[in-house]
Amino acid sequence: MESLKKSLGAKVLFYPAPVMIVGTYDREGRPNVMTAAWGGVCCSAPPAIAVSLRKATYSYGNVVERKAFTINIPGERNIKEADYFGMVSGKNEDKFKATGLTPVKSSVVDAPYVGEFPLVIECRLLQTVEIGLHTQFIGEIMDVKADVSVMTEDGMTPDIEKLRPLVFTPESRLYYGVGRQLGKAFSIGKRS
Amino acid sequence: MESLKKSLGAKVLFYPAPVMIVGTYDREGRPNVMTAAWGGVCCSAPPAIAVSLRKATYSYGNVVERKAFTINIPGERNIKEADYFGMVSGKNEDKFKATGLTPVKSSVVDAPYVGEFPLVIECRLLQTVEIGLHTQFIGEIMDVKADVSVMTEDGMTPDIEKLRPLVFTPESRLYYGVGRQLGKAFSIGKRS
Repeated sequence: MESLKKSLGAKVLFYPAPVMIVGTYDREGRPNVMTAAWGGVCCSAPPAIAVSLRKATYSYGNVVERKAFTINIPGERNIKEADYFGMVSGKNEDKFKATGLTPVKSSVVDAPYVGEFPLVIECRLLQTVEIGLHTQFIGEIMDVKADVSVMTEDGMTPDIEKLRPLVFTPESRLYYGVGRQLGKAFSIGKRS
Repeated sequence: MESLKKSLGAKVLFYPAPVMIVGTYDREGRPNVMTAAWGGVCCSAPPAIAVSLRKATYSYGNVVERKAFTINIPGERNIKEADYFGMVSGKNEDKFKATGLTPVKSSVVDAPYVGEFPLVIECRLLQTVEIGLHTQFIGEIMDVKADVSVMTEDGMTPDIEKLRPLVFTPESRLYYGVGRQLGKAFSIGKRS
């Protein structure tokens, strides 16, 4: 039976939103990082991921210039740094120096990643899509690197229960963790 | 200090991935729903959301034809239907009839939503981006409707702890719930 719904207007509400740390080099080769929540996977083949940035950000110019970026997924233990990366601009501050985290040059694209964060997705710029306040950058995934400590027992795939990525809630602007496993996809919904 | 990382290759690994149920009408006005995990918010102004579909899906043709879709966010209690929606094609099956769920005609766009699901984002097609196996549809959010039962006490915003959206893990293909609140964004990372 249809449940009673309330109209909330034309606004951005979406759950779960991710916490993505975008890593870039500027024109002088200085590494920068910023926090973004507007994005996600956008294609399986080629493997690709989208992230939207405002033109006003320092990272925007870096992606346009270098045609590459990394998406770093912080774990719960990285929450303070991840939040800080979204509050100051790389124009004014060296966020790696301020936090003591390590900028590591990607082996496959012209961008740095955060050495201490548990997962990094290394992308070369594939397409740029103008939408409005935000510009969407579509990156082809050239490699994914994960901490050995967050892999499953067989060492083949990251284990989300070890990775412990953050969930962001738009509007209320809160961070959550990931909860318990609920079931297998392409399985739990099978109808006999 | 940089942690030891393992290279996993050029593949789609991303956490948390969402579980999005795409609602559309076909040419004859029959409502359809399918499950997608490749997508997310892509712009604040206009408010916009992206979802990527393969051309082989029935929903792909529906979005192209009707230039509208809804994104329905299932709660934990809807997990079986949400998973089922990703396993069969609307070409062969009426998924609303099969599950007994209610297709409700959106008041603002030419697409149906799932009456029983706790959150619906109603979109008109803004842009179509060809990437590869997947085509990305960017929808302008015209309205968001939420169950009154999942709103915060003040009735202004959905409460993720009541909504209980699903988290999907690519490759291992598992569903998870959302865990505990970890902190306030734009706050927990403030440096004194």
